[in-house]
Amino acid sequence: MNTFGKNLTLTTFGESHGPALGGVIDGFPPRIAIDLDRVQAELDRRRPGQSRITTARNEADRVRILSGMFNGLTTGTPIGFIIENSNQHSADYEEMAHAFRPSHADFTYQQKYGIRDYRGGGRASARETASRVVGGAFCKQLLELKGITVNAWTHSVGNIVAGHADCNPESNAVRCPDSAAAEKMIDLISEVKNQGDTIGGIIALRIEGVPAGVGDPLFDRLNSRLGGAMLTIPAVKGVEFGMGFDGTRRRGSEVIDEFQVDGDGHIRTATNNSGGIQGGISNGMPIEMRIAFKPVATLLRDVRTITDSGEPTTLHARGRHDPCVLPRAVPVVEAMAALVLADLLR
Amino acid sequence: MNTFGKNLTLTTFGESHGPALGGVIDGFPPRIAIDLDRVQAELDRRRPGQSRITTARNEADRVRILSGMFNGLTTGTPIGFIIENSNQHSADYEEMAHAFRPSHADFTYQQKYGIRDYRGGGRASARETASRVVGGAFCKQLLELKGITVNAWTHSVGNIVAGHADCNPESNAVRCPDSAAAEKMIDLISEVKNQGDTIGGIIALRIEGVPAGVGDPLFDRLNSRLGGAMLTIPAVKGVEFGMGFDGTRRRGSEVIDEFQVDGDGHIRTATNNSGGIQGGISNGMPIEMRIAFKPVATLLRDVRTITDSGEPTTLHARGRHDPCVLPRAVPVVEAMAALVLADLLR
Amino acid sequence: MNTFGKNLTLTTFGESHGPALGGVIDGFPPRIAIDLDRVQAELDRRRPGQSRITTARNEADRVRILSGMFNGLTTGTPIGFIIENSNQHSADYEEMAHAFRPSHADFTYQQKYGIRDYRGGGRASARETASRVVGGAFCKQLLELKGITVNAWTHSVGNIVAGHADCNPESNAVRCPDSAAAEKMIDLISEVKNQGDTIGGIIALRIEGVPAGVGDPLFDRLNSRLGGAMLTIPAVKGVEFGMGFDGTRRRGSEVIDEFQVDGDGHIRTATNNSGGIQGGISNGMPIEMRIAFKPVATLLRDVRTITDSGEPTTLHARGRHDPCVLPRAVPVVEAMAALVLADLLR
Amino acid sequence: MNTFGKNLTLTTFGESHGPALGGVIDGFPPRIAIDLDRVQAELDRRRPGQSRITTARNEADRVRILSGMFNGLTTGTPIGFIIENSNQHSADYEEMAHAFRPSHADFTYQQKYGIRDYRGGGRASARETASRVVGGAFCKQLLELKGITVNAWTHSVGNIVAGHADCNPESNAVRCPDSAAAEKMIDLISEVKNQGDTIGGIIALRIEGVPAGVGDPLFDRLNSRLGGAMLTIPAVKGVEFGMGFDGTRRRGSEVIDEFQVDGDGHIRTATNNSGGIQGGISNGMPIEMRIAFKPVATLLRDVRTITDSGEPTTLHARGRHDPCVLPRAVPVVEAMAALVLADLLR
Repeated sequence: MNTFGKNLTLTTFGESHGPALGGVIDGFPPRIAIDLDRVQAELDRRRPGQSRITTARNEADRVRILSGMFNGLTTGTPIGFIIENSNQHSADYEEMAHAFRPSHADFTYQQKYGIRDYRGGGRASARETASRVVGGAFCKQLLELKGITVNAWTHSVGNIVAGHADCNPESNAVRCPDSAAAEKMIDLISEVKNQGDTIGGIIALRIEGVPAGVGDPLFDRLNSRLGGAMLTIPAVKGVEFGMGFDGTRRRGSEVIDEFQVDGDGHIRTATNNSGGIQGGISNGMPIEMRIAFKPVATLLRDVRTITDSGEPTTLHARGRHDPCVLPRAVPVVEAMAALVLADLLR
Repeated sequence: MNTFGKNLTLTTFGESHGPALGGVIDGFPPRIAIDLDRVQAELDRRRPGQSRITTARNEADRVRILSGMFNGLTTGTPIGFIIENSNQHSADYEEMAHAFRPSHADFTYQQKYGIRDYRGGGRASARETASRVVGGAFCKQLLELKGITVNAWTHSVGNIVAGHADCNPESNAVRCPDSAAAEKMIDLISEVKNQGDTIGGIIALRIEGVPAGVGDPLFDRLNSRLGGAMLTIPAVKGVEFGMGFDGTRRRGSEVIDEFQVDGDGHIRTATNNSGGIQGGISNGMPIEMRIAFKPVATLLRDVRTITDSGEPTTLHARGRHDPCVLPRAVPVVEAMAALVLADLLR
Repeated sequence: MNTFGKNLTLTTFGESHGPALGGVIDGFPPRIAIDLDRVQAELDRRRPGQSRITTARNEADRVRILSGMFNGLTTGTPIGFIIENSNQHSADYEEMAHAFRPSHADFTYQQKYGIRDYRGGGRASARETASRVVGGAFCKQLLELKGITVNAWTHSVGNIVAGHADCNPESNAVRCPDSAAAEKMIDLISEVKNQGDTIGGIIALRIEGVPAGVGDPLFDRLNSRLGGAMLTIPAVKGVEFGMGFDGTRRRGSEVIDEFQVDGDGHIRTATNNSGGIQGGISNGMPIEMRIAFKPVATLLRDVRTITDSGEPTTLHARGRHDPCVLPRAVPVVEAMAALVLADLLR
Repeated sequence: MNTFGKNLTLTTFGESHGPALGGVIDGFPPRIAIDLDRVQAELDRRRPGQSRITTARNEADRVRILSGMFNGLTTGTPIGFIIENSNQHSADYEEMAHAFRPSHADFTYQQKYGIRDYRGGGRASARETASRVVGGAFCKQLLELKGITVNAWTHSVGNIVAGHADCNPESNAVRCPDSAAAEKMIDLISEVKNQGDTIGGIIALRIEGVPAGVGDPLFDRLNSRLGGAMLTIPAVKGVEFGMGFDGTRRRGSEVIDEFQVDGDGHIRTATNNSGGIQGGISNGMPIEMRIAFKPVATLLRDVRTITDSGEPTTLHARGRHDPCVLPRAVPVVEAMAALVLADLLR
């Protein structure tokens, strides 16, 4: 289904090649002043073609709010919005009508629905995430009123891993807080791009200001809600919290987070190996997680595959190509985190 | 909340120190013959004290079915069940009434609820997973009728990683399919146990027989449903599918799964780097994932911590101790996977 | 499905002829002192055989709480409970194995499930409402803490309609607040009983103390939530709010509720034709509705019907018979209303 | 919340005075050919100003489909749609900024949200039902493929009740199948209109072709789902099924529906006092219900009321006025019924 959340929900619709995509934010509290320029700015962050490392696509997305606001304030009623798709050249896509692109959703879509709009990736296309970013942008502004900030950045691209943070990740094209690593990442992405190839990487997420006590000990564990949310983003193949997979190699005595009382009399932990979540519930420390993105499957190369009748075929290199989706995925990760927290705090 | 699933659901209740725990399986199809001995056998698999590597706890759990079956068949009505708790010695627990055990849910519970049954971990306790295993056992039998099998095993304990499978993982105490690695894991766990410590590890999961087309391209992506489910299990700090985190270091050209037509005319992929899921939907290949367990926080050592009034205190080593929960968690992982798939196929 | 509500839910299970029925109350707030004697007292109110107007059935239902409470307080975790069924004489029921009782759920059950526990009405049996009464009893105590009271009574039996209230409806066997009408109702029910027949009637419900602003303008309108809830009770064939069906014959100028400011400066309406709900949201006036019960179909007469192979047959009069379910249904109506309001106010 | 349904859902948004209203149909099956002209035709049926009995409002609603269709077929992905609002004269509405119209949702909205778009009724406005009609129109076409038809008509206006059906209800301005009664209804509505008043009435609904076995014995009883759906329509104050309130005055022996085997060997009932539903599940007979509409509160008269600061005020007669909403509500009733059934059969 296409509705996310329980008490504050986002419902999205739209394909890359239809007239428009959009969504409905429901359960948003009333009387909240929303800066629509900042909503648009979030949408601009996920736009392709922002720098030399990606191929320009003319996607000047503009969000249009249709309901739920009056005199600059939310009214508590559902916030409908649309983003018109610009002209698409359907002629480009005929080659794909009967071929299954490898590691795309073409085949699984056909198996599930028995029909697909072969002009794009349908709902599995990353284009759909534009609607999520709009929903998340509303939620980020709501969370700020509660002192909660949601920040993501590129932690690694291929084998290049960010080290010490020395810059605002928004200051470079890969959204990496380590300027030296950023340069290397940009070089790697350029190299990969020139080869018509793609490369994966890891996005890190840090949520600050969440009070202790958010989440649930059972099926709505905060890590389940956040992890499940990230796993709805195209190309995500893994998530981890705190020490994550590395913690599987440790002993309990090494990783338990001892409680302390800080100078203000607040209980906090000396370390944050738990990533801010214990027993499924926030403990007041920053929530920290990492999200693994596979290299996307759209290569700028001829690719061998089969048709829907099982015949071998070759799909030819086509004009558009994003060698590394991580910079564009950063605002999507933030949006999903904001949606989860705004829902849980509703 | 304590209900899992949408069209086939499991609702659970119960704490480790109350009269009983149990659950309700709802939406289960009618006219399915259920072997209740096999349900009990699954419950026995998660029982502690099964081997020399854990400390015996007298938890002879017996499941009692209260409704939803008639003459050995399900009737389509909700299946209620309970598991009585055996006698608990509440006197043991007074020390914990006012202390927060580090990296347990004591503190977060107190922050969320303002009250807790300090005699155990409440709903965050692993004891609660007994109800999930019962629900999963019903679903495993249902899935078998569709040709779907769900198998999990211990992939690693600490730094010891299973290699080539040469035995039934159920044949050894750690549930590892590599008999040589299993021996080393058992030795490591014994060493850790003697130190009053604990150790983490990774469980691998393989689901076979799922037809292509199960899942959804958006918020109900199969990886989101499965990953979110695993992240509801106590001590899980990460999940990954197919190549997972390792795939973040690869190029697209290395990891795309080429389509082939096999001898029977079925479309399949030459490799399975996607772990059986593309665009959130199963592609007919085996679904493969790994689940990261941190070392649990219950040490058999004196532990420094603070009380609920912020005073330093020491919790003393107590009699029960499970140095490595992975073998017991294997049936829980299988249960959650079975619940997800039975729900999606309902 | 068998879960009711959204943020405070009740999941029930159990048939009349299985070992037990029960339920799980989830999302109930923590630190609420619950008087379990009052919970049992509510359950006693719906017990058959309380007076000369019904045939005694030995149903000494006792509720057993299994979880979710500690030292007399709720803990915020799910409250599991069971009610054991007393011995049932299955031999009595063989006649019903292949016959469809008219206006019962036997035929529709068979069509839906392809199987049924013919010893009773399955989940369509009124016996299932015992679990609802337990859930509602918890919610009534919660609502009382907010100053909200939920009261139902018998408004009519057959053609006998309650007029001026002059007594506590709990003081007579039909739960009618008009003592003269109550006498006539009791006489009518006795007459009907002697004929082996049954009779319908109307239950009135009044909820006081609900603040203005509860409900929703769209799909969760308070009248939809309450009306939908009542329509889940066996034998209910209609609901109406405020002027209800009578208002369909009126003009707008006759029925609009003018606003006033009362002596305390509170806004209220001069009349309450809206039944306390305007635009789907409570307006602070008492919520008033009426619920129509058909005469139940279990006659103490031989009844002609057909078997599941379409052959004519006669079902013979059997020993148990409740000529008028309204008095027993009063606590069920209150329970459903309490569940709805506790959920909306959660 | 603004999402209706479970497996096939409609989410709506929009107020009468914003840029547009619309919705998202989710879970609609793929590969269904939808006649969009018929969708538009349903929307035209609920348009005001269709005849001499209502005051013309220039609401030439046009639905625009934004997603979820490809080459005339549904694709299984969400169907987004919008209906642009034509120019609204906001200047008209200043008088209402601080006054609560009696028996409207103004006051309850203010209590719930603390803010309201006083230019219209917000989400409680009947204008919102346009989105439901679009969703219902898709579902009606889907149901037709299963042989299910959904028909509603005006059963009564004030004291005038339809008798023997002798015409297509769509052939007259009140949508009444009794042509003589229709004439009287039209006269009554004209009289009421001339007085600046409004009048209530009853809509009847008949669903044919639903197979036996649809619904559920408990919280998703078919009568609860249908009744709850109707109670979400503005101005609805009651619902009844089969004999409904009239059945409360009858004896069981009078109203039980005896089973028969018809000439084709199908089991059916001799009478249909149950209205096609037994034990919450359809029995294969036509589903019959009636829905009570109060006279709407928008009079073409000066109305005394109070302001939001509690001061007495008079709202003056304004230009638009619909003396009887029943004819326009007929397609809304059908839409809600179609949404419920399409969801249950999904």
